[in-house]
Amino acid sequence: MTEPSYSEFRQMIEGTFESVPFVREVGLQLHQVDFEKQTLSAIFARKPQLIGNHYHNILHGGVIATALDQVGGFTAMVAAYQRMGGAMDWEEKIQRLMRLGTVDMRVDYLKPGRGEHFLCSGSILRVGNKLVVTRMELHNDTEELIATGTATFLY
Amino acid sequence: MTEPSYSEFRQMIEGTFESVPFVREVGLQLHQVDFEKQTLSAIFARKPQLIGNHYHNILHGGVIATALDQVGGFTAMVAAYQRMGGAMDWEEKIQRLMRLGTVDMRVDYLKPGRGEHFLCSGSILRVGNKLVVTRMELHNDTEELIATGTATFLY
Amino acid sequence: MTEPSYSEFRQMIEGTFESVPFVREVGLQLHQVDFEKQTLSAIFARKPQLIGNHYHNILHGGVIATALDQVGGFTAMVAAYQRMGGAMDWEEKIQRLMRLGTVDMRVDYLKPGRGEHFLCSGSILRVGNKLVVTRMELHNDTEELIATGTATFLY
Amino acid sequence: MTEPSYSEFRQMIEGTFESVPFVREVGLQLHQVDFEKQTLSAIFARKPQLIGNHYHNILHGGVIATALDQVGGFTAMVAAYQRMGGAMDWEEKIQRLMRLGTVDMRVDYLKPGRGEHFLCSGSILRVGNKLVVTRMELHNDTEELIATGTATFLY
Repeated sequence: MTEPSYSEFRQMIEGTFESVPFVREVGLQLHQVDFEKQTLSAIFARKPQLIGNHYHNILHGGVIATALDQVGGFTAMVAAYQRMGGAMDWEEKIQRLMRLGTVDMRVDYLKPGRGEHFLCSGSILRVGNKLVVTRMELHNDTEELIATGTATFLY
Repeated sequence: MTEPSYSEFRQMIEGTFESVPFVREVGLQLHQVDFEKQTLSAIFARKPQLIGNHYHNILHGGVIATALDQVGGFTAMVAAYQRMGGAMDWEEKIQRLMRLGTVDMRVDYLKPGRGEHFLCSGSILRVGNKLVVTRMELHNDTEELIATGTATFLY
Repeated sequence: MTEPSYSEFRQMIEGTFESVPFVREVGLQLHQVDFEKQTLSAIFARKPQLIGNHYHNILHGGVIATALDQVGGFTAMVAAYQRMGGAMDWEEKIQRLMRLGTVDMRVDYLKPGRGEHFLCSGSILRVGNKLVVTRMELHNDTEELIATGTATFLY
Repeated sequence: MTEPSYSEFRQMIEGTFESVPFVREVGLQLHQVDFEKQTLSAIFARKPQLIGNHYHNILHGGVIATALDQVGGFTAMVAAYQRMGGAMDWEEKIQRLMRLGTVDMRVDYLKPGRGEHFLCSGSILRVGNKLVVTRMELHNDTEELIATGTATFLY
């Protein structure tokens, strides 16, 4: 019973993440996936369409929520994939992961979304056989913590 | 002491809502503002860029969060404007409203975001002299409740 | 195929609700259960041990959270019981309901918890075959809305 | 301009924490306060009245929410006190802190509340001149993470 390498799964994650239409719209790009720590991060650059407040030239809260939801969801996939273990075959696992959806999310907007580049990272609070709870953070290029979030996913 | 008509404020709301760059990107349009009930709603149509899941052809959670945040924020402005009353002059009120920001938000994703058109509506749970708490709902064109949210705003 | 009366289930709910030790401690009592509307409510009286702030003589936030969690959970049981339908036998359904647990909860503290008596009511936002999402409200005896909440339950 | 020692404030925190009636009811005791890191923790022991589920002998969700709310609030006080700095006198600061209240809170119930002793700790996500956002965690005596929470406080 050989523990499979994650190369196939990593390819799937990489192929899927940026193929999500709204993720492309925002310009969110997968940055890192760590299967051992079950963490994942993505980056994006400020562009005029992402602004929520002219006067202050800051990101719209919806952009931040989009990044947190997307990163949380894919971090949850990483943990759920490992949780399903060897009991299921590849096909079946992927099918379950494709159905993974956000149940609820809290976002805390800590500082105005100022900056040129943003890094959004996700980690696992709990992984069960149906639910995954993740924590997410968004930092700007001066390492300010712009927002945090917690989300529950069902798979 | 004449109670001012809301025409000037309504114009401001209407002029501002759709000028928000990310709101245009999503295609969210102001639908109704009711100053007496302190409710506000917006509509948007599905378009390919808003999709979050190819397989299921549903809205990205971030699109839903964007609509809820935006509608919640503008509903909060309506209530905050009235709360400030006659004690402040127009200039000062508008300046405070321009600084209104989301403190935190919870989104509950109740059903997959399927549909051609969506209606997002906001109402007030509490308005204080610093904070406003709003509740938001998103329905699709078959009147399914897709998502609800609660958010806290500071002004 | 006769639709069973809810009398047996109602008895179970009534017998269980007030047998929860911490619920007795707080003094929370089941008030109403409506199986058709899938709503449930409970009442409790202010007593010195429930106070959170001497100076203002108001309920501790934890008392409010306790009422919301408890009422949300039992409202969720009502909906989950009906959702399981005739496919499962009584024994099996009850076993699943006994395992029902809170996944997460948001509480909004809208007004100070002043009053002699409080009514906490729950309703259903969504019932699935694994998760139930409920909304809860707490009113005092002058019908002020003290707090609202949203919670997700797994069964 | 001597930086005041925190001894007076520490005394106030220590004197106030366990004088809260519902905190006594639950048996929550202040454990540590770190003014530099702006962290605070409290402990409590399982007792029969705190149980929420007979069958599983676990804490009621409301007990967990009580601990998180209380620890979050007092952690927020520590940060708010420092944020107010030397501009206000002692009297005025304490008056503002006495009015500090929870605006909203999210609790994530990650594992059943099993254990003999529990440690609840709080830290600061953001401190502004009106709002403080805190994160809280509850561990049991085998160092399992039972619950996490995020709360917003107004002062």
